[in-house]
Amino acid sequence: MYFRLEKMASTALSERLKKSVTKDALRSYFAEFISTFFYVFAVVGSSMASRKLMPEMAANPTGLVIVSVANAFALSSTVYVAANISGGHVNPAVTFAKVVGGHISVLTALFYWISQMLASVLACLVLKVTTVGQVVPTYTIAQEMTGFGASILEALLTFALVYTVYAAGDPKRGALGSIGPLAIGMIAGANVLATGPFSGGSMNPASAFGSAVVAGSFKNQAVYWVGPLAGAAVAGLVYDNVVFPAQTPPDSLRGISDGIGL
Amino acid sequence: MYFRLEKMASTALSERLKKSVTKDALRSYFAEFISTFFYVFAVVGSSMASRKLMPEMAANPTGLVIVSVANAFALSSTVYVAANISGGHVNPAVTFAKVVGGHISVLTALFYWISQMLASVLACLVLKVTTVGQVVPTYTIAQEMTGFGASILEALLTFALVYTVYAAGDPKRGALGSIGPLAIGMIAGANVLATGPFSGGSMNPASAFGSAVVAGSFKNQAVYWVGPLAGAAVAGLVYDNVVFPAQTPPDSLRGISDGIGL
Amino acid sequence: MYFRLEKMASTALSERLKKSVTKDALRSYFAEFISTFFYVFAVVGSSMASRKLMPEMAANPTGLVIVSVANAFALSSTVYVAANISGGHVNPAVTFAKVVGGHISVLTALFYWISQMLASVLACLVLKVTTVGQVVPTYTIAQEMTGFGASILEALLTFALVYTVYAAGDPKRGALGSIGPLAIGMIAGANVLATGPFSGGSMNPASAFGSAVVAGSFKNQAVYWVGPLAGAAVAGLVYDNVVFPAQTPPDSLRGISDGIGL
Amino acid sequence: MYFRLEKMASTALSERLKKSVTKDALRSYFAEFISTFFYVFAVVGSSMASRKLMPEMAANPTGLVIVSVANAFALSSTVYVAANISGGHVNPAVTFAKVVGGHISVLTALFYWISQMLASVLACLVLKVTTVGQVVPTYTIAQEMTGFGASILEALLTFALVYTVYAAGDPKRGALGSIGPLAIGMIAGANVLATGPFSGGSMNPASAFGSAVVAGSFKNQAVYWVGPLAGAAVAGLVYDNVVFPAQTPPDSLRGISDGIGL
Repeated sequence: MYFRLEKMASTALSERLKKSVTKDALRSYFAEFISTFFYVFAVVGSSMASRKLMPEMAANPTGLVIVSVANAFALSSTVYVAANISGGHVNPAVTFAKVVGGHISVLTALFYWISQMLASVLACLVLKVTTVGQVVPTYTIAQEMTGFGASILEALLTFALVYTVYAAGDPKRGALGSIGPLAIGMIAGANVLATGPFSGGSMNPASAFGSAVVAGSFKNQAVYWVGPLAGAAVAGLVYDNVVFPAQTPPDSLRGISDGIGL
Repeated sequence: MYFRLEKMASTALSERLKKSVTKDALRSYFAEFISTFFYVFAVVGSSMASRKLMPEMAANPTGLVIVSVANAFALSSTVYVAANISGGHVNPAVTFAKVVGGHISVLTALFYWISQMLASVLACLVLKVTTVGQVVPTYTIAQEMTGFGASILEALLTFALVYTVYAAGDPKRGALGSIGPLAIGMIAGANVLATGPFSGGSMNPASAFGSAVVAGSFKNQAVYWVGPLAGAAVAGLVYDNVVFPAQTPPDSLRGISDGIGL
Repeated sequence: MYFRLEKMASTALSERLKKSVTKDALRSYFAEFISTFFYVFAVVGSSMASRKLMPEMAANPTGLVIVSVANAFALSSTVYVAANISGGHVNPAVTFAKVVGGHISVLTALFYWISQMLASVLACLVLKVTTVGQVVPTYTIAQEMTGFGASILEALLTFALVYTVYAAGDPKRGALGSIGPLAIGMIAGANVLATGPFSGGSMNPASAFGSAVVAGSFKNQAVYWVGPLAGAAVAGLVYDNVVFPAQTPPDSLRGISDGIGL
Repeated sequence: MYFRLEKMASTALSERLKKSVTKDALRSYFAEFISTFFYVFAVVGSSMASRKLMPEMAANPTGLVIVSVANAFALSSTVYVAANISGGHVNPAVTFAKVVGGHISVLTALFYWISQMLASVLACLVLKVTTVGQVVPTYTIAQEMTGFGASILEALLTFALVYTVYAAGDPKRGALGSIGPLAIGMIAGANVLATGPFSGGSMNPASAFGSAVVAGSFKNQAVYWVGPLAGAAVAGLVYDNVVFPAQTPPDSLRGISDGIGL
């Protein structure tokens, strides 16, 4: 890893920048923006809808079903539409895993992250404004839990998610490849059902960041960055090196659309 | 856009009309009628079923799950069955986007709209009659919201829906193409979970119109036309011009089955 | 239709019987038995589970979600496993449509029906015995409704179901064909959400018959035969003659595996 | 069967052991470990989440929906990611059926079992520790039921599950093969809806064992071993011998990846 990053640094930055602003690359950032916007819109919006319908109970089992199904439905769809354009990350943690594994360059990843973050903040802002000041909820952890425990949980959840993303993008999948986006959405939905009332079940620094910015509360924000990024990086490395040793040349721009899709 | 519409107008109307009443074209209208009928039947019916089972609470979280899942299930299925016949629009907003993008002619679109509207009115009428006078619910917006805010929300939801429809119909999708109708149904379901208690989560002028006609109340009807049509048109133009610049010849009857399917 | 049935009758019965007891044919009956058993087991069982968990409320919105999701999940799976063996009917109404359309012979259909009915009765019996006398629920219609209205509803629901079965089995579907069983399960689930508290949402004479036999109550049983059979027959004829005029030779044993699958 | 097992015993154990520790074999055990970990994590975790949100009611209809959907989502995903590595068993009962049918060797199955059991215990342990001592629930049977009745139910459920696994792995499936993991997850979800409040709806000795170990209660544990193993073995034999008489050479290591995937 270290050597690879160093090698990347030695490449002339200007040339790399040029690669990151080609028409195809810009299209990828746009695809990530659109997909992340609607993913966060559905996930945060469904939590707001649940609260509006049952104001006296902040958390209840039906609300858990609502947020889980919103995750599964929205992630399946938004990964699907972006899959053969940007690789369908829709999550900074997925992008991070791709950088760590050498599939995309640091610079490209930065543009992905900016697109994802802007999309998330904007989605939460639109929700706040159009619903005339409904509270935008932030991810929270159970009172009895520590930030460390919640980070472990979020790391595990994101490991499962990113491991599934890698499996779905594996060219050796054959016919099974076609349902990849559904498998990705479903593991996200299952994870929310298992941990929603404990760690919040975010698995996505973008959705955690966007709702925190608009709600103006960064309590426990670290949990939703440290956990997911660590879990994602480990998942990517494990899949590439243990499950299917990678054969694709790392760090080429072709890697941008590497993921699902192609 | 303007030029294209003008060019279309200059074509002899009679010839165009002939193209719109071929056997294949009539089959398309029929497919839209059937699919829209059962989509509206499931969506409006599930809302009626939810009210019957919990009469004292007009809106509750379980009711939101019911209508969302009905949307996801019914739209996936009905888009699927019509996909390789009519393109599987099942929604006047989708048809509108196809006209704006020059994929189908204005005349063909008119016949699609008529089929969709008749189907929706008939579905709501059948529900009212067979359930012996249960109230047919209309889409409503939250008390604290303005019609403008609700229109923005409906435009966004329909943007997501139509963007997914375009992605699903993209021939560059390869193997992923096969789950297109599921992605379309799922984004609709996710959108309902996010906005049901706020803007109603219609995304479909036909379902809004049909239930309004049978219920006899056109309050806020404009929200469900202005929002969805604007969102749909923008989504189609963005996908064609930004994401994947269109290469298909516009405005040929071949465009009728253009969408998913073929 | 009439001529075809007459022609069939003129064929020597013994020869026809031979065709209906080939190894492949017997395998088809077995596949229908297994799939119908587990479909009815899930649908009737989920209704019993819902009642056990909320005994004071015979009908409630969460119970509707439970039975709808059980329908969607179980029908998708059981149609899937039987698809390329028996065609995946899992429903006497589907079999009836195939006879009316001339896709399978009357004799073969009789064996399908017997398999489906036996499977359903046995599934309900197993549920009653293993749960130590829990009440096996029968399909019921809302108090304010007439049997005629309920039959109309059940006919419509079954029309949608069988129309989807035909669309899924259409060889012109291409890549979309692979998700056929999911589309079939989803339309069933959507239909239950729309009509569960009104007509019961059966769409299947086998599940209605099996639960009625074990519960010992045949009240309104006619609703679940007249409606589904009529709706199914019309759906098959409409799909074959209006949507895609049939080109397959009718009434050959090849027709047994005609449906989805092959 | 008997002869085959004897023949296997006569093979030099050392040679067999060598086959069971090849790089591909080790990768299979790893894949089973990861997939079983996240399946059990989701299923047991979702039950804990449901209890935390509604502490006063141990069992309620919404909790049933939560655990069923967690099963369907998590099993679909985890079978999907392991499918073309280990065959995607994710369940000792599936592995047992493959041994009984002669698809994999006893030794390989032992390693599969160890991976699955370790994964399940670890998943339950992680849940207990990170949630700071929330009760890890074990599978229980309804008060009025006997262990025998519950075993029958679990055997039936597992029969349906393993029968679907075999159907999904059938190479004669063609295009339908691609949705196999979804069909497997869905039948599991449907089965939970039908029997959750009666026999617990486990269908998986690993999840029953892991939660029992961490909870420290082995009450009724036999139900979740005898039932599923018996049901699985019968399902495999029936599919291989009745539905599609097997043509693949039994007991070759190739059988490891035999299942779904390839």
